[in-house]
Amino acid sequence: MILLKKRTLFCGIIKSLTSDAFLARPFHKTPSCKKCLTPETVNPNLRSIDYAIRGPLFQKTLEIENEILQGSKKPFKNVMRLNIGDAQSLGQPPITFLRQVLVLASYPVLMNNKTFPNDAKLRAKAILDNCEGGSVGSYSDGCGIEMIRKQIASYIEERDKVSSHWRNCILGHGAGDMAKKFLYMLQCDNNGLKPGILNPVPECPFYSATMTELGLKRIDYYLEEDNNWHVNVHELQRAVDEARKTCNPRAIIVINPGNPTSHVLSKETIEEIIKFAYKENLIIIADEVYQDNILKTNCQFVSFKRVMSDLGEPYNTLELISLVSVSKGCFSESGIKGGFAEVVNMDPDVVPMFVKAINAMLYPSVLAQAAVYALVNPPKPGEPSFEQFEHERKSIVDAFKMSATIAEESFNSLDGIFCNPIEGAIFSFPQLRLPQKAIDAAHKRRISPDEYYALELLNETGICVVPGSGFKQLPGKFHIRMTLLPQPHKMHKLMKRYKQFHYKFLRKFSYYN
Amino acid sequence: MILLKKRTLFCGIIKSLTSDAFLARPFHKTPSCKKCLTPETVNPNLRSIDYAIRGPLFQKTLEIENEILQGSKKPFKNVMRLNIGDAQSLGQPPITFLRQVLVLASYPVLMNNKTFPNDAKLRAKAILDNCEGGSVGSYSDGCGIEMIRKQIASYIEERDKVSSHWRNCILGHGAGDMAKKFLYMLQCDNNGLKPGILNPVPECPFYSATMTELGLKRIDYYLEEDNNWHVNVHELQRAVDEARKTCNPRAIIVINPGNPTSHVLSKETIEEIIKFAYKENLIIIADEVYQDNILKTNCQFVSFKRVMSDLGEPYNTLELISLVSVSKGCFSESGIKGGFAEVVNMDPDVVPMFVKAINAMLYPSVLAQAAVYALVNPPKPGEPSFEQFEHERKSIVDAFKMSATIAEESFNSLDGIFCNPIEGAIFSFPQLRLPQKAIDAAHKRRISPDEYYALELLNETGICVVPGSGFKQLPGKFHIRMTLLPQPHKMHKLMKRYKQFHYKFLRKFSYYN
Repeated sequence: MILLKKRTLFCGIIKSLTSDAFLARPFHKTPSCKKCLTPETVNPNLRSIDYAIRGPLFQKTLEIENEILQGSKKPFKNVMRLNIGDAQSLGQPPITFLRQVLVLASYPVLMNNKTFPNDAKLRAKAILDNCEGGSVGSYSDGCGIEMIRKQIASYIEERDKVSSHWRNCILGHGAGDMAKKFLYMLQCDNNGLKPGILNPVPECPFYSATMTELGLKRIDYYLEEDNNWHVNVHELQRAVDEARKTCNPRAIIVINPGNPTSHVLSKETIEEIIKFAYKENLIIIADEVYQDNILKTNCQFVSFKRVMSDLGEPYNTLELISLVSVSKGCFSESGIKGGFAEVVNMDPDVVPMFVKAINAMLYPSVLAQAAVYALVNPPKPGEPSFEQFEHERKSIVDAFKMSATIAEESFNSLDGIFCNPIEGAIFSFPQLRLPQKAIDAAHKRRISPDEYYALELLNETGICVVPGSGFKQLPGKFHIRMTLLPQPHKMHKLMKRYKQFHYKFLRKFSYYN
Repeated sequence: MILLKKRTLFCGIIKSLTSDAFLARPFHKTPSCKKCLTPETVNPNLRSIDYAIRGPLFQKTLEIENEILQGSKKPFKNVMRLNIGDAQSLGQPPITFLRQVLVLASYPVLMNNKTFPNDAKLRAKAILDNCEGGSVGSYSDGCGIEMIRKQIASYIEERDKVSSHWRNCILGHGAGDMAKKFLYMLQCDNNGLKPGILNPVPECPFYSATMTELGLKRIDYYLEEDNNWHVNVHELQRAVDEARKTCNPRAIIVINPGNPTSHVLSKETIEEIIKFAYKENLIIIADEVYQDNILKTNCQFVSFKRVMSDLGEPYNTLELISLVSVSKGCFSESGIKGGFAEVVNMDPDVVPMFVKAINAMLYPSVLAQAAVYALVNPPKPGEPSFEQFEHERKSIVDAFKMSATIAEESFNSLDGIFCNPIEGAIFSFPQLRLPQKAIDAAHKRRISPDEYYALELLNETGICVVPGSGFKQLPGKFHIRMTLLPQPHKMHKLMKRYKQFHYKFLRKFSYYN
């Protein structure tokens, strides 16, 4: 960067090497302005925001990576970032078909290129025909391109065998954006009580951070670890009864398959949740982004909408928002930020407000919408891309299942670790039974015992995981969350390294030492 | 869509044909659930949100387009959507280089394709080298990819000849996303007073909608139409003095070049605004997204940062956020949603909060970041794409200047219309002097006179513009906003059609009729 003597005014001192820990600081001492935005006058919701996935442990990871770059010697070659569910960062290849649709829509000159298959060209043409001016560079409706919304509705109908209307299908800047827009709609006090949202614990950090950001009250309900993290309606009742004293419960978030807990809800459990939501007059926010990540043959994904429909009246009139994403499943295109929501049974008088608000908000990029289109309209049998698509999809799914099995079996073969069956999604969340000496050592350092364990794991093996305390857990219980995304051969090596570390850790803090 | 008899439960009655006016409504009458989300319990900020650009007039446009599709005869072949600043929808071609970078990064197989120039390949390679796992499908840091942030800093230094630090440069889901994230930071009451933001009027609907969405108090300051829409510090003083009685003014938004008013601020005016902001302890939010849309040879874009730096202490320590976008300028890639902010002089104790909050929020898509990279690192002289890039850029700029001239001259040649010199940005905002009879006719219909005028214009010519009342204006003043984006030959024809309509309208409501 240029450094002009007279104009270094905005250049800063970097206080920390870790990425983004600090923006550049001004040099000035005097007579600098009185700051308008100070820690005391920042939006109070943002003051306390936290995001465990990129928390202190991740900062330490960046530090170590930097040290390795500087030539410092470590007992490992590089850090394995298993903290984030980011498949492509760990080598999962993108699905060719999706990328082809994307580039054909972005650069239509390639329509004449014979190496691109015709079905990808047809998808791209359909997208361009429905963009104003025939270009992905033009604005989109706030809710997304109508043609893509119609295709989403067909996709949902195909999945659920329940009719879906395209006007209920709204594209977002990822599924998270739709969840956030919807949660923001709920931000309304009632008789001085803040709105509350039932939130599964161990929690998904996105929801807890978003609720903090929006100033919504989290109503924690604990998943039953002893019952493979399933939802217990008595626990829901306890949570909502307690919450009614201090807030106004308005919605329940259910993540199925679970994050970080990797369970898949049975139809019966979903029925119970629906009946509970009906009784308590709650909206259901069904985060179903891992619907294509099913790992056990005895598990099956069933959507909330399907179960509501099967239950019939009055349960099929419940307000529901269901989320789908291109960041998960076999596509795993986290960087593209494509996703959508189906919103059903919204009050007809609220609908125009919702649509007006969404139109005034920031719309999803047309490229993200194009990726969603490839997801909901994949190659069909007989189309030229079908075989390659199926092959790629199957390879990804098979590798993933294998990695999950390796992780689950390895964890369960170790003393002091218990891992529930990994039924779906992309994480393992084993419980650690830590020696009292290790717990004491952590407390001495004023960090949680699983954070201490995870830090030691990072320092000794380069494996970066998230401590269970980042997701909340029952007092005295300790976990780590590790993604299942490394390819099987890597997962195998990694679990070997992990095993060595674990026993070393146990020995270090053994009662007999 | 499938309609399964037993499961039509979620399918809806469409009340209106206009897009998104209504989502699907449930059929049920009884015994449907008591709705949790009702007009009374929606976030009160969203209840009153409005967005003139896609307001009633736009809905009417969609209706007419639909009627044309159904075969209904109109006095025009199709609607010209001049309500939105959406260049590519009106036929502006994308810049080839940007699209090439995008597709090479999305589909690296094309790196071996000889029809793609080497400089585009180098840019794509740089992007991929800085994506985790070498793929645009992996997660990005909340603030964006470090390498791209560094390139942004160089770009700003090149523009301003003032040093810029990459940690101050943050990528967003478009520039609007960054504005919104920053405005949300300011959401903090002070002694029971809501935060207020100075907002130029005629206003940019994005800011007014966003402030409504976030519950921030708008402090309107009027731009001086008689002085080519320039900012008058006395008016700023009036606005802030009045506002202090009811809110806590925290920031001033300045849009330069102006939207909808198309003025370009002089260095002297910017100096005055900076001194005013310093005196009143306000953060400056400089929306500089139209910085490359300069239309008059006697006008020049000067950034707020540059002027702050030239002014020296203490003004160079003011808190400033400046916005840049790929949706504007010669790129005009509105659909891609790429943009960034430079944030300078933020309180060092606020910075980590800001970064933590941004990391917990939704990050911009990597493809949008790739587009920003092409914007801040365009082909250099000697590189293979340079000539084509310069040719495309110049064609766009020249056509645009010509269209602006045609519009300005045509408006000013008509009775009852006055149009200020169009100095920059992409809109014309002429004032209409409407006959009293037309004003009365509008009031009878309970709409504003310029809305009435715009509706008649739409019905008779198919030209869709936004009435000035959608941007607020002084009482008794009437305007329309029309984009300058049609190609010159189209603009020429269009202004002819417009002229005929205008005189017909004047005759219809003439005093002598």
